Amino acid sequence: MLTHGGDIVGFAEQYGTEPLDFSVNTNPLGFSPQAKAAFLRAAERACEYPDPLYRRLRAAIADHEHIPVEWIACGNGAADLIWRIACADRPRQSLVTAPTFSEYETALSAVDCRVGHYALSSENGFRLDDGILTHITPDLDILFLCNPNNPTGLTIGRSLLQQIIDRCRVCDVRLIVDECFLGFLPDAEQLTLKPYLAENPGLVILKAFTKLYGMAGLRLGYCLCADAAFLSDLCRAGQCWPVSVTAEEAGIGALKDAEFVEQTLAFLPAERERVRQSMEELGLLVYPGEANYLFFHTDIPNYQERLAKRGILIRSCSNYIGLRDGYYRIAVLTAEHNDRLLAAMTQIKEE
Amino acid sequence: MLTHGGDIVGFAEQYGTEPLDFSVNTNPLGFSPQAKAAFLRAAERACEYPDPLYRRLRAAIADHEHIPVEWIACGNGAADLIWRIACADRPRQSLVTAPTFSEYETALSAVDCRVGHYALSSENGFRLDDGILTHITPDLDILFLCNPNNPTGLTIGRSLLQQIIDRCRVCDVRLIVDECFLGFLPDAEQLTLKPYLAENPGLVILKAFTKLYGMAGLRLGYCLCADAAFLSDLCRAGQCWPVSVTAEEAGIGALKDAEFVEQTLAFLPAERERVRQSMEELGLLVYPGEANYLFFHTDIPNYQERLAKRGILIRSCSNYIGLRDGYYRIAVLTAEHNDRLLAAMTQIKEE
Repeated sequence: MLTHGGDIVGFAEQYGTEPLDFSVNTNPLGFSPQAKAAFLRAAERACEYPDPLYRRLRAAIADHEHIPVEWIACGNGAADLIWRIACADRPRQSLVTAPTFSEYETALSAVDCRVGHYALSSENGFRLDDGILTHITPDLDILFLCNPNNPTGLTIGRSLLQQIIDRCRVCDVRLIVDECFLGFLPDAEQLTLKPYLAENPGLVILKAFTKLYGMAGLRLGYCLCADAAFLSDLCRAGQCWPVSVTAEEAGIGALKDAEFVEQTLAFLPAERERVRQSMEELGLLVYPGEANYLFFHTDIPNYQERLAKRGILIRSCSNYIGLRDGYYRIAVLTAEHNDRLLAAMTQIKEE
Repeated sequence: MLTHGGDIVGFAEQYGTEPLDFSVNTNPLGFSPQAKAAFLRAAERACEYPDPLYRRLRAAIADHEHIPVEWIACGNGAADLIWRIACADRPRQSLVTAPTFSEYETALSAVDCRVGHYALSSENGFRLDDGILTHITPDLDILFLCNPNNPTGLTIGRSLLQQIIDRCRVCDVRLIVDECFLGFLPDAEQLTLKPYLAENPGLVILKAFTKLYGMAGLRLGYCLCADAAFLSDLCRAGQCWPVSVTAEEAGIGALKDAEFVEQTLAFLPAERERVRQSMEELGLLVYPGEANYLFFHTDIPNYQERLAKRGILIRSCSNYIGLRDGYYRIAVLTAEHNDRLLAAMTQIKEE
């Protein structure tokens, strides 16, 4: 039943202890201190209904993103927004890459949308290429892209993205670009598609507090789009209190925590490269992901299980459409935790 | 845009101060202390993804309700479950009472379901009568009832409920009974339809932590149904992390707080009767609601606005289908707060 990572409860049931969890991709520094402080203060408002329009949060996001407040909608995690997009738009023909985050297809299928897959090939290192442009036709209603992609961590080239945006506008295709992991890249502000929003009302950017601010448990995501009528449809395509009081308060707190993001970016890219090199030295095929996780392949059978027996949970990617056995994803955690993973990987190699 | 009560932010924008809020129906004693303690501890797990199967919470609910764990599904508030029911079932013909909680119709309409209304008449004191039985036919797919009803607070007679259950089973109509406010009645365990679940797999009981445990801001509801396959469909009819870490922890804490529920029930029914009598003495037509709120009618124009100018927010019910101007709902709060409401009502009468 569980298709995503992070099944700590299931792991504990099977192995008798909670794992060191590399299977989810949240910030290794944990919960943003400013978000946490705001969260604790929110206990005093837990008995009040949330503001259905989460006006204070939207104002804070508008200020942080330099985006008009009318271009912002929030949800109970980015996953809630993916479902709302599918429910509000009711597309008939969609396109996703394979592999990518599975919730796009799950939500699209739930509204009886046909889902086409653009295969990212191992020969091409799973990088998106311009072959996708010929699949963007007037018959297509919606295209989901993830940048950087999940589970590969690979980004999409800027010039290709520009061509995709142009082609989607010409063909009247709604383009959803999931930037939930983009905040882990030092050049995120250069890579975001925010500058294209004004000219492309069909473009929707998905973002989350989940990963960067270490608050996956609180469920808060948002999307940016210049088509205010579409956002209004989104808000009506589901229950009217998607954002809890605590998520709203913690989100407002998080956006004040520039220091936490700086600390994350000061440490993460170099640590990721260290882990990647060590894994390659162990004979694993590691892809050059740019986010807070690494995607790799190994021919060693039952690799997830071998690590699980050592108390470590990683994400098997064999249930991603477009992947087969032997592909895995790990989060980049703190150096101490990563060393434990690398030590276990070394043991497995020596078996 | 706002159809429900509790618009504190909007009130503050208009009147320059936060209101004394009688427009939402949560526990006047606030946030259950045990739920709050669990909530504060949950800060340490805020960076983890929630368990998509919320196994610890389901086990706690099963224990509390004396219901098999397979008969339980949770959501991001009961409202989330209402939407999931509509999305999972895709009914074509539905029936709701008028007036009742508007989210049923909103969710049903969103999946293109025709919504029929069974009118509760003012002549009949807005009480449900057996005329509804003739509307339960094989053409009907789903019936939503709210017991006690929102906004009236009136319960449905036991023998009528039994007839409705039987008729729904014969006609293969899914019956949703919303018991979100039932916990405020001292005889809730005698009134709940839980004993009918085993024999009626088409029966779904909705419950929420929102109201009784004073945690509307955290968003947590659940439903009980003996049709485990249907619950599985529910869980797939939306994003897979509906219950936040904090909602799960606070929910588990709340269920341990029998003392808080006892305190609530020791105080509320008598206080509600005191408020009702005082309001009747002021010439208002107050219906004999049995929950933590009172529904009333007055011919005094702009009654909500008159109270708002005195810093008090009540729920105008004029936007409920089946009601017209002059109907209002107030929560029963603490005696001190209720006295402030009654004083303001007295001033208005004397104007």
